[in-house]
Amino acid sequence: MTNAAVLDQYKAWHGKIEVTSRVDIEGPEDLARVYTPGVAVPCKEIARDVDLSFDYTRRANLVAVVTDGSAVLGLGDIGPEAGMPVMEGKAALLKTLADVDAFPLCIRSKDVDEIVHTIQLLQGSFGAIHLEDIAAPRCFEIERKLKETLEIPVYHDDQHGTAVVAAAAMANACEVTGRDLDTAGIVIVGAGASGMAVAQLLLGMGATQITLVDKDGIVERDDDIVTPDTADTVDKTNPRDISGELAYAMSGADAVIGVAAGGIISADMVRLMAPNPIVFALANPMPEIMPDEARAAGAAVTATGRSDFDNQVNNVLAFPGIFRGALDVRAREINDAMLLAATHALIELTREDGLAPNYIVPSALDRRVVERVAAAVADTAVATGVARHSAAEGH
Amino acid sequence: MTNAAVLDQYKAWHGKIEVTSRVDIEGPEDLARVYTPGVAVPCKEIARDVDLSFDYTRRANLVAVVTDGSAVLGLGDIGPEAGMPVMEGKAALLKTLADVDAFPLCIRSKDVDEIVHTIQLLQGSFGAIHLEDIAAPRCFEIERKLKETLEIPVYHDDQHGTAVVAAAAMANACEVTGRDLDTAGIVIVGAGASGMAVAQLLLGMGATQITLVDKDGIVERDDDIVTPDTADTVDKTNPRDISGELAYAMSGADAVIGVAAGGIISADMVRLMAPNPIVFALANPMPEIMPDEARAAGAAVTATGRSDFDNQVNNVLAFPGIFRGALDVRAREINDAMLLAATHALIELTREDGLAPNYIVPSALDRRVVERVAAAVADTAVATGVARHSAAEGH
Repeated sequence: MTNAAVLDQYKAWHGKIEVTSRVDIEGPEDLARVYTPGVAVPCKEIARDVDLSFDYTRRANLVAVVTDGSAVLGLGDIGPEAGMPVMEGKAALLKTLADVDAFPLCIRSKDVDEIVHTIQLLQGSFGAIHLEDIAAPRCFEIERKLKETLEIPVYHDDQHGTAVVAAAAMANACEVTGRDLDTAGIVIVGAGASGMAVAQLLLGMGATQITLVDKDGIVERDDDIVTPDTADTVDKTNPRDISGELAYAMSGADAVIGVAAGGIISADMVRLMAPNPIVFALANPMPEIMPDEARAAGAAVTATGRSDFDNQVNNVLAFPGIFRGALDVRAREINDAMLLAATHALIELTREDGLAPNYIVPSALDRRVVERVAAAVADTAVATGVARHSAAEGH
Repeated sequence: MTNAAVLDQYKAWHGKIEVTSRVDIEGPEDLARVYTPGVAVPCKEIARDVDLSFDYTRRANLVAVVTDGSAVLGLGDIGPEAGMPVMEGKAALLKTLADVDAFPLCIRSKDVDEIVHTIQLLQGSFGAIHLEDIAAPRCFEIERKLKETLEIPVYHDDQHGTAVVAAAAMANACEVTGRDLDTAGIVIVGAGASGMAVAQLLLGMGATQITLVDKDGIVERDDDIVTPDTADTVDKTNPRDISGELAYAMSGADAVIGVAAGGIISADMVRLMAPNPIVFALANPMPEIMPDEARAAGAAVTATGRSDFDNQVNNVLAFPGIFRGALDVRAREINDAMLLAATHALIELTREDGLAPNYIVPSALDRRVVERVAAAVADTAVATGVARHSAAEGH
C-alpha cells in the first residue's frame, strides 16, 4: 500500500476504535434504569464500597492505553496526538484478540511526576494501565512510581511485551540450535525500554552471559545512561567486564537481539559470531539486518518484528493475553512471575506444535495464544497472591 | 424495579459502555495497516500537523464525560468512582441518540486547578469535554478556565443542559398560559450550577423579573455564595431588591423553577403565586413538589425531571444534539448563541406539534430532537465564527 492509500484508509475509518452502548435505550423504562432514577442505586453502592465499581461499571474490563508520544515506533518524540494511531491500534488489537476494552489517552507532558499524577487521578476509571511508547529512562521511573501507588496493574508494553516475546523466542532458538540459555552468550543491542526489559527477563530465566550494547558501545555500570531503575539489571550483565563497540561485543556471541534501529548490524558482524548464531533484528519497520542477509552470513535462526518474514517477534503475542489474564482474576499488579508465566506459555505452545528454525514463536494472530497466555498469567496471579478473584467472571 | 433488581441488572450489564474496534483484524495485511508498519504513516502526518489528529484518529467524534463525583444526581459528594454509573449513562445516551462516542473519566481530586490541569493534559485525546456532576461554585471556575485554555468545546451539562431545556419549557409554558417571558415573574429555587445557568439563559432570552432563592433565602449580590463567576448573573436578578424566604419570593410570582431538593415547595406556597401559575419541580428523583399536588393548589402548567409525568424537563433533550452539532462542524467552543439556538430548536419543535399545558417540551426519546438541536447548534457555530468546517462530515 502506498502512503497515500494508507492515509485514505485511515480517513475512511474515522478512527480505529469506537465507544458503543451495551444497553438498549428505547423507552422510558430503559431511560429510568440506564439514567435517572435507577442509576442512583449503583452510585450509592459504590459510594459505600468503592470496590463495587468493578461490578457496576465497565472498569473490570477496561484498560487505559497511555502515551506521552515521546518514543513512538521507531519515529521517536513525535508528540502525544501523533502517537494516537498506535494507541488506537493497540486498543483495537486488545478488543479483537482478547475482548479487553481499551481506551487510548495521550498526555501533553514529558514530566515524570506530572504523567504519574495524571494517571493516579484517573485510576478509578480503569481496571489496568497499559503504558506505551514512553521514552527511556523516564518510562522506568513512571512505571515504578505507578506500581508503588496504584491499586490496579501497570504494564509498559515496550518493556514487558517485547521482553516476553523475545525471551520466549530466544529460549526456543537456543533449543533448536542445541544451546543452553543459561550459558549462551547473548548480545542485546539497544539499552532503552525494550533492551533493559529483555535483559531483565532473560536474567530471570537463568541467562548469565548477557552483554548490553548502546550507541556508545557496551553498557557498563558507571555509564551515564544507567539510572537507579536500571542499575540492578546492568550490574548483572557484562560478566567479563569488557568495553568496546558492537562488533567486539558480538565476536564469538551465540545470539544477538537488536531492539535499536534499522541497519546497524552488518553481515561482517554476524560472521564474527559463534557458528550457527541466532540473530533477532526486531527494529520496526527496518530491522537491524535483513534476515536473508543474516542467514547468508551464517545465521541459523533469524527473527524480525515484521509480518512479512518467518518468526515474527511481536508484542501482539503478549499484551492481549497478559491483560486478559490479569483482568480475569482482578489482579492488583502484573508481577515478574506473571510475565515469566506468559513467556513459558509462548515457549510451550510453540514446542507443542514442533520447533523449527523458522518456527520459534506462534504466528501473531494465532487465536490459541491469548487463551494460553491468559490462563498462565491468571494462574500465576492467584499463585503469587495478587489476584482478588480466583477465577474469571463474564466480561 | 426494586433496588436489588437494579443492582442485578447492573451486574449483568458489566458496564453500560464498551470500546469496540472499527477495523477488521484477520490476517497479516490487516495487522500491517492497523498496526506496524502502516500506522507510522498517519503518525508522521499528525506530527507534521496536529490538526490532522481529527482526520486520522477517533478524536473528531469523541467526547470525554468528566466528573469529580462531587455533585452526583441529588446524592451530593459521593466520590469519583461512585459517579461513574451516571457518566456511563451519559455516554450510552450520547452514542444511542446522537452517534457521539463518549468516554467516562472520573478524577480523584476536588481541586479546581488540578482538575483543569488534568483535562488540559488530556485534551489531545478528545474532540470535546462534557463536564458532569461537579459541585458549584467550583464548576463555574473549572469551566471558565478550561474555556480560556482549551482548543476544543467545553460544556457543563448540569448548567447548560438544564438551562436549555428548562428555558425552552418556560418559554412554552408562558405561551400556553398567555404570559410574556420578558415580564413574567420567575422564581428559581436553587442557586447552584443549574439555577445560575437557568437564570443566565432566561436573562439572555429577555426575562427581566427573575428572583434566585437559595437555602438561605433570596440571593442578593453581596451574599457569600456569589463568586466572580456568578456576580454578573446575580446582579441582573432580584430587580425589586427584596430580601426574604422562598414563600415571600413566590408571592405573586408567575412561575417557579425548582432545581434544588425534593419536597421544599409546599401547596401553600403555590397558592401564594399569581393565578394559573407555572410550577417546574425538577429535582431528581423527588421533585420539590409533586405535580398533582401543585395542580390541586392551582398550577396551570407543571413539569418535573421524571419520565413518569408529563412535561419531562430533562437534559437528555439537550446534550446529545448539542454535541452532535458542535462536533459536526468541529466547533472550537460551545458558546451562548449555540445554547440559545438549541433552546429555540426545542421551543419550535414543540410548537409545531401544538402546545398544550401537558406538552411544553418534546418527549425525552423523540428522535427528531437530536436532529433539530444539532442543526441549530451547527448553523449557529458557523454563523458565530467558531466552526472549523461548514458542514458535517461522516462520523
